[in-house]
Amino acid sequence: MTGQTTLSSRGEGKLSALVVGVGLMGGSLAAGLRRTGNWHLIGLDANRDQASAALEQGFVDEIASDLAEAARGADLIVLATPVGTIVKHIAELAEIAPKNAVIIDLGSSKQAICAAMDALPEGMQAIGGHPMAGKQTAGVAGADPDLYLRRKFVLVETLRTGDRARELAIALVDAIGAVPVWADAERHDQTVAMVSHIPHFLSLPLLLATDKMADDLGSTLAAGGFRGVAAAADDNLTMWKDIAVSNRAAIADGLRVFAKETEHFANLLERGDRSEIESVLEEAARLYREDFEP
Amino acid sequence: MTGQTTLSSRGEGKLSALVVGVGLMGGSLAAGLRRTGNWHLIGLDANRDQASAALEQGFVDEIASDLAEAARGADLIVLATPVGTIVKHIAELAEIAPKNAVIIDLGSSKQAICAAMDALPEGMQAIGGHPMAGKQTAGVAGADPDLYLRRKFVLVETLRTGDRARELAIALVDAIGAVPVWADAERHDQTVAMVSHIPHFLSLPLLLATDKMADDLGSTLAAGGFRGVAAAADDNLTMWKDIAVSNRAAIADGLRVFAKETEHFANLLERGDRSEIESVLEEAARLYREDFEP
Repeated sequence: MTGQTTLSSRGEGKLSALVVGVGLMGGSLAAGLRRTGNWHLIGLDANRDQASAALEQGFVDEIASDLAEAARGADLIVLATPVGTIVKHIAELAEIAPKNAVIIDLGSSKQAICAAMDALPEGMQAIGGHPMAGKQTAGVAGADPDLYLRRKFVLVETLRTGDRARELAIALVDAIGAVPVWADAERHDQTVAMVSHIPHFLSLPLLLATDKMADDLGSTLAAGGFRGVAAAADDNLTMWKDIAVSNRAAIADGLRVFAKETEHFANLLERGDRSEIESVLEEAARLYREDFEP
Repeated sequence: MTGQTTLSSRGEGKLSALVVGVGLMGGSLAAGLRRTGNWHLIGLDANRDQASAALEQGFVDEIASDLAEAARGADLIVLATPVGTIVKHIAELAEIAPKNAVIIDLGSSKQAICAAMDALPEGMQAIGGHPMAGKQTAGVAGADPDLYLRRKFVLVETLRTGDRARELAIALVDAIGAVPVWADAERHDQTVAMVSHIPHFLSLPLLLATDKMADDLGSTLAAGGFRGVAAAADDNLTMWKDIAVSNRAAIADGLRVFAKETEHFANLLERGDRSEIESVLEEAARLYREDFEP
């Protein structure tokens, strides 16, 4: 983090960050940044209790209630609310943010957010962000300074991304121990649909199909394998509702391809011979080992 | 286990069990039974090294190489090989087993096995079994006397199930700390297709669809959520090939219903409004909490 002193606009040698939304994602980010001792953190949350809790737990140095006022002194404005609210905040910041502030977000889908960033006035800087981490427990109660440790943090350049935005984004990613990955917004949304959103949402058709096909013996016999997929349906519903709506097109596309592969496999089971079935299972095992084994 | 002494045909106060196939499932069962001190265990395995390993690790008291000879002295014959081989062994035992032996199996699907048991000569006793437990590591290397502890153990009556079979089956289930659940073969196969086999096999269409829809960014961004579903593809391939083939009709039926629910959800994401999407997610969360939360 050699750029820190030159990046700081506050003197004191600290970077200041305003975190809008100090729930699980924003609260964890604030806690991780503050722990380094190099950042001054201001928290803002529509839920006052959540803002107070973030202050009490030492995740932020101070809390604010007015976006315009809090944004004025910040080197970096981190938008960590649901995607729909992030887009609204970007439009508000277009009017009120000081010209030298940089905006970054933590939203799970990037196309709508980056389009809003593209539309910011020239001279303002903004960069899209998506740290690939989560947790069952929503809100500041689940926040953890180590949430992003060794996790991938996707960064998406916009028409308003200049050197200062790039440097501050990298400083932030470094400070929380995450690993930066650069992508464009469309490729990001399609990829996370496949490797993050769809694995989560398979819980839904699995539960609905099981409800149709099995009686109470299903509840009796369901064990770790079933729960490993189905329990996601009850995780952090607020966050996942936002993801379902904000990345709906990419998730729907991916689910259709997935449903087709599922039907092919059903046909193979019904009509294929043993060696055909075995080779498809081997192919899937090979794909996993080659492309996804940690 | 009040019935033990009366159940024993060996004198000595011990029940004797021949376990055919001392891999993960059979090895764990033998180890759990032997630990009680109330059972004398004979292991038999087409793979001689596996039989020797089971003996060396103290899972069995002795090993045998001839099914007919080993079956002669056993109170209980436990068939713990792949389903196809279990069916063959039942036919062989019809010729050679002493009339007072009881046969039980540990196969993951029950219709073919129970039909073979139904066809045993009158006077022989047999009962279907399926302990709902597994592990990534195949073979005797993964065997563990605690594998079945507090797990459900499905028991399926056949035309050849009498009191002696029922009592020995319950003694076995008790001895390994499992919980007996009675079901008929068809309901068992359909239910485990939904709550055990399909959750496992979703790894396959997920990997194939991701391979089509995502490039190397997919491998970079895939994290716990993806692996939680996809890693199953590389688990104990021998066992899962056997399950895919032996329960193919029920799995195919369930997968088709699942694929339809997946397409409905894709359509909803594309065309529904936010409140419709949110209420389907809430419905799935409710289903999970009401029917499947541990």
